[in-house]
Amino acid sequence: MPIQNHNVLAREGSARATEFTVPLDPWSSERLAKNDVMIQTPTFMPVGTQGTVKAVMTRDLKTMEAQIILGNTYHLYLRPGHERVERLGGLHRFMNWAGPILTDSGGFQVFSLADLNKVTDDGVWFQSHHDGSKHYLTPELSMQIQRALGSNFVMAFDECPPYPVEPQKLEQAMRRTVEWAKRGLAVELKPHQNRFGIIQGGLSVEHRLQSMADLTALPFDAFALGGFAIGEPMPLMHELLETVAPKMPENKPRYLMGVGRPEDLISAVSSGVDLFDCVLPTRNARNGQLFTSLGKVNIKNAVYAEDSGPLDPDCDCMACTQYSRAYLRHLFIAGEHLSAQLNSIHNLSFYLSLMRNMREAILENRFDEWKKNFYKKFKGK
Amino acid sequence: MPIQNHNVLAREGSARATEFTVPLDPWSSERLAKNDVMIQTPTFMPVGTQGTVKAVMTRDLKTMEAQIILGNTYHLYLRPGHERVERLGGLHRFMNWAGPILTDSGGFQVFSLADLNKVTDDGVWFQSHHDGSKHYLTPELSMQIQRALGSNFVMAFDECPPYPVEPQKLEQAMRRTVEWAKRGLAVELKPHQNRFGIIQGGLSVEHRLQSMADLTALPFDAFALGGFAIGEPMPLMHELLETVAPKMPENKPRYLMGVGRPEDLISAVSSGVDLFDCVLPTRNARNGQLFTSLGKVNIKNAVYAEDSGPLDPDCDCMACTQYSRAYLRHLFIAGEHLSAQLNSIHNLSFYLSLMRNMREAILENRFDEWKKNFYKKFKGK
Repeated sequence: MPIQNHNVLAREGSARATEFTVPLDPWSSERLAKNDVMIQTPTFMPVGTQGTVKAVMTRDLKTMEAQIILGNTYHLYLRPGHERVERLGGLHRFMNWAGPILTDSGGFQVFSLADLNKVTDDGVWFQSHHDGSKHYLTPELSMQIQRALGSNFVMAFDECPPYPVEPQKLEQAMRRTVEWAKRGLAVELKPHQNRFGIIQGGLSVEHRLQSMADLTALPFDAFALGGFAIGEPMPLMHELLETVAPKMPENKPRYLMGVGRPEDLISAVSSGVDLFDCVLPTRNARNGQLFTSLGKVNIKNAVYAEDSGPLDPDCDCMACTQYSRAYLRHLFIAGEHLSAQLNSIHNLSFYLSLMRNMREAILENRFDEWKKNFYKKFKGK
Repeated sequence: MPIQNHNVLAREGSARATEFTVPLDPWSSERLAKNDVMIQTPTFMPVGTQGTVKAVMTRDLKTMEAQIILGNTYHLYLRPGHERVERLGGLHRFMNWAGPILTDSGGFQVFSLADLNKVTDDGVWFQSHHDGSKHYLTPELSMQIQRALGSNFVMAFDECPPYPVEPQKLEQAMRRTVEWAKRGLAVELKPHQNRFGIIQGGLSVEHRLQSMADLTALPFDAFALGGFAIGEPMPLMHELLETVAPKMPENKPRYLMGVGRPEDLISAVSSGVDLFDCVLPTRNARNGQLFTSLGKVNIKNAVYAEDSGPLDPDCDCMACTQYSRAYLRHLFIAGEHLSAQLNSIHNLSFYLSLMRNMREAILENRFDEWKKNFYKKFKGK
């Protein structure tokens, strides 16, 4: 079922504010008491790798107005198993999340997390990072897994080449990505599911545009840019995005996979990207690194030991309104569970609020001014 | 300020349902918009060792109607330091808990957790379990620490003898406990703070009654039974409680420290105890051992892998109403933070609901019948 009612509501330079509706799965619809849900972009999608956004409850994801969350096909296939999730009513019901879910294809994890045994044109042999057991993932199986999970957005199975990479390997990966995309499209999904094609092509504008031409010729509902944030210099990515992102189809969602820092989101939104995901806010939260309107805060720093002020005076999340920096530091030093909980709630709230602020600024044609004001306070690095 | 309006509302055998009011500290009062709070017993006090009940947010403690929570003097003295907590507005404000707090004296932890260097009639030299640093704890310092923390209930500093112990050592500990109690009483506390005396005496009825006579002659607001659940056979403890607990002052709260399993709480309530604390529900939760109306559930058991039913059909906590046993098992196996969060919420909800059910049964003079019905379903061990 295609993404519906896609509207570009406003533009400022290449940046855009859009909205679109998607049907939910039957269980989600029942919980939401309606059939469709509207997504407003730009937005950030919290990552729920193993059927939970780490340390965060779904009620808090609702409070921070998360619109879509991610599930990882590779992890859920290995544990608890996609067929088991399906028998238990699908991923929405399993994890008690009544909003949209996007699942990745498993490709990136197979290439980065697992022991890779063999990649052929047909598929990928890999070993589980849990127990070394051997598995074979193909474009068809990736679709079957995502169908069983019942996510709303299904990613094509792609080959993600490393950085740096020889031109020949890059072209092989691009060719496979298109072939695999076609094979995936031949697999029927559930009525509520939408499909993203993934554009590859490394840091070459030419290759990216070729991949885009190949993929957009296929009947995908939306498109993603894959293969970024894998070790390349970020300025090179942003330079490429400035050229490539605005050329993506106007009337379909644009998703930059696995990126990134607040400054990366701002630059990519400026280039016309709508959707983002990244483990950074949750992973850094667990390591005590917090994002605030004033820049990064390393909460274990002794300077916060008696700081009775809020983590971020501009944030209305639970961590900032109910606790002091001193308490957050104490929890981190003491290794308490509540540290990961509050820090993760804060970092995700910061990311989601950042995206909402950008959206509002674009809608009011003051995005450029908003960026300047943001960087007046926010110190990167 | 003494505990006020203490009422024994109902009795059944030695079991009793009571209520009493306590003044809160200024910050708590402000948050609760009143000066006094009523405690209804029997009740269980969740343990918040380091300024947080492990993995549980204060909003969830409110939802499960926790009336009093614990803080550990030993831990908070070492980290972040009681003077720091006081400068940050006291323990209530520090951890954002607007209800009553009980702090222990530090004695039990010094005798069980720390490297003990020397115990004299004057005080105890010990080494921190964090960094081996040397510290000297006295009855006076224990009061000063608890005064700085600002807890509502302050425990006397006692010597907790091990089990088994020679009669001479036991008598020495009893004597010291009385002397230390007197020295603690000489230290002024804050106006809202109440004091518990701690009765020692091991497993000897005679020694317990002697200790009770010595302690109840002193101006304490309430009394606790210390030195249990330290390795002795539980049936011996319950036998002793049957004789000793009913002889504790009628018009003051009775607290059995550090106990225990659901069946221990039921037996001790039957003997006339009002208040309990124990790390069991939260510690076991983190290990995947859950208490339900049907008995213990080890959630990692493969039998739950596709169990779509609730953990405990009789429980209305978030874990039981929003998730399946299969999901709770998955979270535990996957090592997700949410596992400790949901399991802890459940186990504490179970304990608090158990206490409320006992209270209601006593008030309605059907406690004996309630016990029989409870054990018809609940399988211990």
